[in-house]
Amino acid sequence: MHILTLEDYQVVVGEEDIWTPIRNVLHKGEMYSSVLILVDENTEQHCLPTFLDNIEYPKAKIIRVPAGEANKNLDVCNSIWAQLLEQEADRRSLVINLGGGVVGDMGGFAAATFKRGVDFIQFPTSLLAMVDASIGGKLAIDYKQVKNTIGLFLNPQAVFIYPPFLKSLPDRELRSGYAEIIKHALIADHGMWDGIQQIHRLDGVKWNQLIHRSLAVKKKIVEQDPKEKGIRKILNFGHTIGHALESYSHMTNEPLLHGEAIAIGMICEAYLSNKSFTLTVNSVQRITDYILKIYGKVNIDNWPFDKLLQLMMQDKKNEFGRINFSLLREEGVAVFNQNCDTGLIKECLLYYRGL
Amino acid sequence: MHILTLEDYQVVVGEEDIWTPIRNVLHKGEMYSSVLILVDENTEQHCLPTFLDNIEYPKAKIIRVPAGEANKNLDVCNSIWAQLLEQEADRRSLVINLGGGVVGDMGGFAAATFKRGVDFIQFPTSLLAMVDASIGGKLAIDYKQVKNTIGLFLNPQAVFIYPPFLKSLPDRELRSGYAEIIKHALIADHGMWDGIQQIHRLDGVKWNQLIHRSLAVKKKIVEQDPKEKGIRKILNFGHTIGHALESYSHMTNEPLLHGEAIAIGMICEAYLSNKSFTLTVNSVQRITDYILKIYGKVNIDNWPFDKLLQLMMQDKKNEFGRINFSLLREEGVAVFNQNCDTGLIKECLLYYRGL
Repeated sequence: MHILTLEDYQVVVGEEDIWTPIRNVLHKGEMYSSVLILVDENTEQHCLPTFLDNIEYPKAKIIRVPAGEANKNLDVCNSIWAQLLEQEADRRSLVINLGGGVVGDMGGFAAATFKRGVDFIQFPTSLLAMVDASIGGKLAIDYKQVKNTIGLFLNPQAVFIYPPFLKSLPDRELRSGYAEIIKHALIADHGMWDGIQQIHRLDGVKWNQLIHRSLAVKKKIVEQDPKEKGIRKILNFGHTIGHALESYSHMTNEPLLHGEAIAIGMICEAYLSNKSFTLTVNSVQRITDYILKIYGKVNIDNWPFDKLLQLMMQDKKNEFGRINFSLLREEGVAVFNQNCDTGLIKECLLYYRGL
Repeated sequence: MHILTLEDYQVVVGEEDIWTPIRNVLHKGEMYSSVLILVDENTEQHCLPTFLDNIEYPKAKIIRVPAGEANKNLDVCNSIWAQLLEQEADRRSLVINLGGGVVGDMGGFAAATFKRGVDFIQFPTSLLAMVDASIGGKLAIDYKQVKNTIGLFLNPQAVFIYPPFLKSLPDRELRSGYAEIIKHALIADHGMWDGIQQIHRLDGVKWNQLIHRSLAVKKKIVEQDPKEKGIRKILNFGHTIGHALESYSHMTNEPLLHGEAIAIGMICEAYLSNKSFTLTVNSVQRITDYILKIYGKVNIDNWPFDKLLQLMMQDKKNEFGRINFSLLREEGVAVFNQNCDTGLIKECLLYYRGL
């Protein structure tokens, strides 16, 4: 069992040894008036039975949302609030978000705003949520096709990560989560970047260790800057373009998973890092090659540059109307608050298209 | 000018002298990328012209909501988010909530959750908002007829209170706000309670001083317990029954204003304070007489006791399924976490009905 201690909560990564600390939280002196577990149809099928068998809390109530990023919206959030009200959750209730990033981000936001805030625990079940959404306190829903537009920063009571749940995850979802591991290596851990380049297939990875190392990178960054006023923005490497691609793809018949979009975004923004900053051409090539090896090349119909730029204009990191990037100084080191003009942004998309 | 300094913001109460500190906030080194002023149709007509004349910030953008408590809901909150998105507000924007409690509570919640939080200033224009909603960091919208069900605690950047705006306020609204002043006196300031009993008409009141004294009571309480885990609950005196009456009245053709409902709630809960706690019969009489003198007697058709109890069951202060009251130990001293059985709750409503 690995334990990461953040400012006011702990992240516990483990296998069968994690159930005891969870039971301790739930049973601590009748602390909670009720416990509500939020699931989607996937985690209800693949994770909830194991979870219920182990927590030994028969009175737990189940609340449900439909799976998928397209459901991380105000209507579905509204349905969580309605279920909390119906189930008579009060301020002393505990919500456990058992699911991927959508369940964690939206369930966390719903809990944080229900009756001005009830406690919640994050129990991420996807690799993406384990390495990214699980720490840092970012809670949100998408709004009018713009990602994470409504939300807030609030830490959970605790995060529990149980990598055996990854066995039920489709390969495509596993690859999606892996993009954030690549990102953590590229922005802040050169040694980890050297290491993961030896990984060519995801089915034999020792996840416990890799998740722990990846979380250690993120922890170090979010602790320095919890509200993303400065250094935390480097976590957005690959995300300015990636988010726009992801949002756009959701308007088409071929939606990209978050990490698939971020993988493309990292290639494009590595190119930008060379053109408007100090990353070498060799580094761009190495990053491009590795990401293509894992993800393959994605074809976007007609590359709607204007629409993508318009979506980037909505990015939360922008200030004073300029599109704001986090770029690489070198492999393993990132910088934030970099502006690039629209010509160069189009050029980096063309670079990817031409690969 | 009176200045109250709270943990991380100031409340400024004044007349023409308040415009300089506001201008200082707005013009401080190009700090804000844009300034958006939220109004309803009443404050747009009666307050916005004076406000714009004085702040000297011609680029300010106006966003609008319809007036009235019935609009403090998710649909209207959604329209604020949509306007912020349309007006291209970013994380460096500032929202100024120029209005009563609805504008402040809902505009504050919308700002606090837009792009995970933009700065906001509260500029309350009703007496109720000046003495109550303006401090304490409570932000919320109503949800499915249950008051303040969705929200959070977050302090504004600053609060500015300009009592000359009260001249445009209808008498009924003035009386509504005055209920919170009575409450502050009854729960924590016996001297103030002695003083306000000399006030028989609200048109000659020196508001600056009374608002300042009332806010000083609230400041002292919320500073001890910002998240309402304990002592802050005494601010809910009159509100368990008052909120239920208010919510119920909104389903009828004769909606009560917040303070009108709280005034009834204070009479009922004074009665409870005698029956299940230590408040004397003489005190109940004095409180009843004074509140009736200011508010008169309200007739509620058919007194729907079951519906009112059901609404009380939804009160955020409840824990473990019990209805939770804040009651008076004596005039000027309150206690919290008092449970009363439903028979006694019905009895106190009958007491009011029989007056």
